[in-house]
Amino acid sequence: MTSRDGFQWTPETGLAQGVPSIGVISPPTKISTSSATYDVIVVGGGYAGLTATRDLTIAGLRVLLVEARDRIGGRSWSSNIGDYPFEMGGTWVHWGQPHVWREISRYNMRTELEESFDFSRGVNHFQLRTTQSTSIMSHEEEDNILAAGLERFVNVDGAMGRKIIPFPHDAFHVPEARRYDEMSAQDRVSEIASSLTPNERASLESFILLCSCGTLETTSFLELLHWWALCGYSYRGCMASLISYKFKGGQSTFAIKFFIEALATGKLSYVFNSPVSSISDRGDKVTLTTRDGHQYTGARLVSTIPLNVLNSVSFDPPLGTQRATATNIGHVNQCVKVHAEISSKDMRSWTGVSYPFNKLMYGIGDGTTPSGNTHIVCFGGFNNHIHPEEDINETKKAVESMAPGNMDVKRLVFHNWSKDEFSKGAWFFSPPRLLSTSLDAMRARHGNIVFASSDWAIGWRGFIDGAIEEGTRAAMTVKGELQPAPVPRSYL
Amino acid sequence: MTSRDGFQWTPETGLAQGVPSIGVISPPTKISTSSATYDVIVVGGGYAGLTATRDLTIAGLRVLLVEARDRIGGRSWSSNIGDYPFEMGGTWVHWGQPHVWREISRYNMRTELEESFDFSRGVNHFQLRTTQSTSIMSHEEEDNILAAGLERFVNVDGAMGRKIIPFPHDAFHVPEARRYDEMSAQDRVSEIASSLTPNERASLESFILLCSCGTLETTSFLELLHWWALCGYSYRGCMASLISYKFKGGQSTFAIKFFIEALATGKLSYVFNSPVSSISDRGDKVTLTTRDGHQYTGARLVSTIPLNVLNSVSFDPPLGTQRATATNIGHVNQCVKVHAEISSKDMRSWTGVSYPFNKLMYGIGDGTTPSGNTHIVCFGGFNNHIHPEEDINETKKAVESMAPGNMDVKRLVFHNWSKDEFSKGAWFFSPPRLLSTSLDAMRARHGNIVFASSDWAIGWRGFIDGAIEEGTRAAMTVKGELQPAPVPRSYL
Repeated sequence: MTSRDGFQWTPETGLAQGVPSIGVISPPTKISTSSATYDVIVVGGGYAGLTATRDLTIAGLRVLLVEARDRIGGRSWSSNIGDYPFEMGGTWVHWGQPHVWREISRYNMRTELEESFDFSRGVNHFQLRTTQSTSIMSHEEEDNILAAGLERFVNVDGAMGRKIIPFPHDAFHVPEARRYDEMSAQDRVSEIASSLTPNERASLESFILLCSCGTLETTSFLELLHWWALCGYSYRGCMASLISYKFKGGQSTFAIKFFIEALATGKLSYVFNSPVSSISDRGDKVTLTTRDGHQYTGARLVSTIPLNVLNSVSFDPPLGTQRATATNIGHVNQCVKVHAEISSKDMRSWTGVSYPFNKLMYGIGDGTTPSGNTHIVCFGGFNNHIHPEEDINETKKAVESMAPGNMDVKRLVFHNWSKDEFSKGAWFFSPPRLLSTSLDAMRARHGNIVFASSDWAIGWRGFIDGAIEEGTRAAMTVKGELQPAPVPRSYL
Repeated sequence: MTSRDGFQWTPETGLAQGVPSIGVISPPTKISTSSATYDVIVVGGGYAGLTATRDLTIAGLRVLLVEARDRIGGRSWSSNIGDYPFEMGGTWVHWGQPHVWREISRYNMRTELEESFDFSRGVNHFQLRTTQSTSIMSHEEEDNILAAGLERFVNVDGAMGRKIIPFPHDAFHVPEARRYDEMSAQDRVSEIASSLTPNERASLESFILLCSCGTLETTSFLELLHWWALCGYSYRGCMASLISYKFKGGQSTFAIKFFIEALATGKLSYVFNSPVSSISDRGDKVTLTTRDGHQYTGARLVSTIPLNVLNSVSFDPPLGTQRATATNIGHVNQCVKVHAEISSKDMRSWTGVSYPFNKLMYGIGDGTTPSGNTHIVCFGGFNNHIHPEEDINETKKAVESMAPGNMDVKRLVFHNWSKDEFSKGAWFFSPPRLLSTSLDAMRARHGNIVFASSDWAIGWRGFIDGAIEEGTRAAMTVKGELQPAPVPRSYL
């Protein structure tokens, strides 16, 4: 099936909107009557919503899943083009990410991962282009440069951040951590700038912007420390956890498992292509109204609507002040992720940074397509933002400029997350002060409405893991309320 | 409630068998009729059995849990003595252990962990006693010595084991890994012995034996490489993952969550104090007979009986040859774990190795009891084996000899895992060749019987995480068979 989401360009076909994905659900509706009352309405079919839906239906509750798009996966989905999976959003997973790995293990998909990097043949180098110079170096030198910069960046406590964030799944465990949420990445870079070589600084800054896809000024230093802690307080841990391991078949082969399992319970109804207009909690039940005027009611509602679009839905009673403020501030990630198929087989082992002058700043060889082309994935962000479909020649040039002379572009594939009205951005990344002021508010319930999103997860916030963490939490909360069971006192 | 398991000694009371635990289930039986047929019989109430039981009852299946002991938890349980939790078996957990951490997150127990080590005050040193000498050094020196030895030990590929085990949750991903299962820890120590100082060697060997609690000759080198890979290929990762973080309230506060959740479904029956005599699979159903002659039948049976005692139960049809062989070989872990309360507050920050002459070899300050005593935990193994209750003075001396003059023992607490007829050993640790020949056979089903134990987990084998991994797998398998649901072809 072809989703409305995503874009593809080839020299032959030009630009076309919509790409195929096994995450597209057809028929898009499975519902008995339009006025049924459900135990739970789950809004959103990304990993948070899929997890909540699955857990609740397994527990025997009658769930209606309402999704604005024509597909599952939210900000993580893959497109199969020419029998090759292009990851349109969230991609990489790791066994140190507990919630996602538990699911990979549970669905027996442990051996369905592969490494993005393959340095076994070809150019096997790192190309660092800055305003001043272009350097070609080994991947070992690449590691050394970035590790040196990063370690200086995070080492605020003489213990590589371990004293500030000793429990990565409890980032505010040490009260002093809040101080670092007052700082931007720019603030911290300025503190250590005199100790960095130009290449170290360009490498560090582009890595930071690869994480946040904001600007250095709008990136919370604390959230970077939090990522670092989650990754085991090491550069190698960061590389392994953030950008190394992906599904051979693409993210949608994973997401569909949740959906199929929920469907198999016989407890799942769903409506796709149904953006939500308003949600009204009347105390005894919650009523959801779609833009096209359908109404559904449930005893509880799980909203997985992302932070950046939560204010596009009308809530009655209205959301609390702190949550509303957080939503209006929003997170800062405006990632531009562009896949390119290029003819050079040798570029499979290439990595590159072109910063800060280029419209894309970070790229790696990510695979080889069935036709023998090399698949390159490139990232840009808000620091030098483009809408890749608006000027496809500019986008193509930005790819070419990552490695001049070596990027013979045969195909481009991308999703414009910034213009996507159902996400208005990519994975969550916090600006300064948002977390320390608003994390609790973002996590709080609102009457019969429970909010679940990776955007306010505790652990791997902004990751697929965080979405599953949150879907799990929402299901536990709702299940505990709708299926209370007396337990003999002796067990409590 | 007081369990029959465990021992306690104080100068005032002498030795007494049985210690209190919130893991003891009372009343010990909840069952409607003795001849009911269940969907699933789960044998064993450790984490594998608890996980399978919980997941299956949540899915609406009628489960009978049959447990030989008077308590849940299997090889992981805590005793509350004087309002302080002594961990009788499996203790430490980490957020890099995906299955256990998912549960900790799901039960909202993330902030109920604490660190075992506290180097903030007191002696703050490492005491290394070998046959040749006694050294007192800083914990930093302790780290350096062990890290140096360990890194040489695991570095078989010039990449710290990363090339041999690139996927820790798929240890045989690289075929060459099998070669290292042919080797014992002794074989590998011999290869690198000339490069080790006496202190490095004693520190390395005692650490290896702390992991396996066998002998160097009976410890698979591959399984140590596997642990190393799981711990992120680093010494710091090992310390963090293996021996740092525990539940403030003890393991049984965690295990009981699974039991209560299963009970709350209304689908759970259980019989404690019911050792199994035989299990017979008649094709359409499985019949279990207890030692006291009760019979129970189910459509499926999940056996979590540990490897080392699987041959104490009669199976009809008999177990396959390879599984039977593996069971008769068994794993090698004969851990002797002895808790001591001592009067010195300063010893809270002590760690020590006394090796190879002492009956206990490894100890750390693990807490401060409500009465202000320091809690020390000591480990021994099969290399110098004792049954701690048989000669309590010898046991006390072995504790005292860890730090002569500083161990004023006020209380001893322990569980004799070697004599425990329901485990015959502690956590799984593989001898050479067992995994490469028998892991698949140990994991295989046997008609309507599914086998689930951390002993043959894929990832954190031998850990609580592995038990949950396996309980999850068993529940998925059984659920998929007993609740098959047609799924529209378009989703497959």
